[in-house]
Amino acid sequence: MEKVSLEEAFAGIDEPWSPRLAADPNGQHVKLARAEGSFTWHHHEDVDELFLVTGGRLRIEFRDRADVTLEEGELVVVPRGVEHRPVAEPEAELLLFEPAGTRNTGDTDNEYTREQLESV
Amino acid sequence: MEKVSLEEAFAGIDEPWSPRLAADPNGQHVKLARAEGSFTWHHHEDVDELFLVTGGRLRIEFRDRADVTLEEGELVVVPRGVEHRPVAEPEAELLLFEPAGTRNTGDTDNEYTREQLESV
Repeated sequence: MEKVSLEEAFAGIDEPWSPRLAADPNGQHVKLARAEGSFTWHHHEDVDELFLVTGGRLRIEFRDRADVTLEEGELVVVPRGVEHRPVAEPEAELLLFEPAGTRNTGDTDNEYTREQLESV
Repeated sequence: MEKVSLEEAFAGIDEPWSPRLAADPNGQHVKLARAEGSFTWHHHEDVDELFLVTGGRLRIEFRDRADVTLEEGELVVVPRGVEHRPVAEPEAELLLFEPAGTRNTGDTDNEYTREQLESV
């Protein structure tokens, strides 16, 4: 049973938008990701996605509703099916909570897609 | 889609060891709890329990292995079936991830048990 320090884990993550696995309780994945600039527009058909900002500031843009801006220590759940685009200006540190196997780019497949999930 | 500020949520939580629901993505519960002193020894038969300390310091004691002490910004997963006792001296703010319906005192039923789960 190894604890994870968010600070130490993020110190080892250089590449933005490349999530790392921090824990996998109950078939769920807790991932850490560095955000920088704009991600790709996408949605997750059957998956609600929780974003917790642990550093910096993240704006989540939507097609059909007002943006949500998360400061450090704020979280939101993007419901399944809702198209969204995370944007960090300049950057942010994110903790994501979602079912194991969730693809980072949802319904899209592009240069942001990461099929491999390394641990922190 | 409402965001949750951990700071604002904890400002509204007075009672220790009385978790509040912050989000419920994918049949999971994200709970916030104020910790103060010792909780009760317990285990969760079929549930892994993730603890993330967002303020203060939490020691998790075990019957069969060394304690784990979490500082702010550290997380650990207590595997299903493992008896444990969280202890905060003097206090801590906790974010818990676990399946909906998980009882806070696991296999035990005592003065710490909270069957009702209010939202933050």
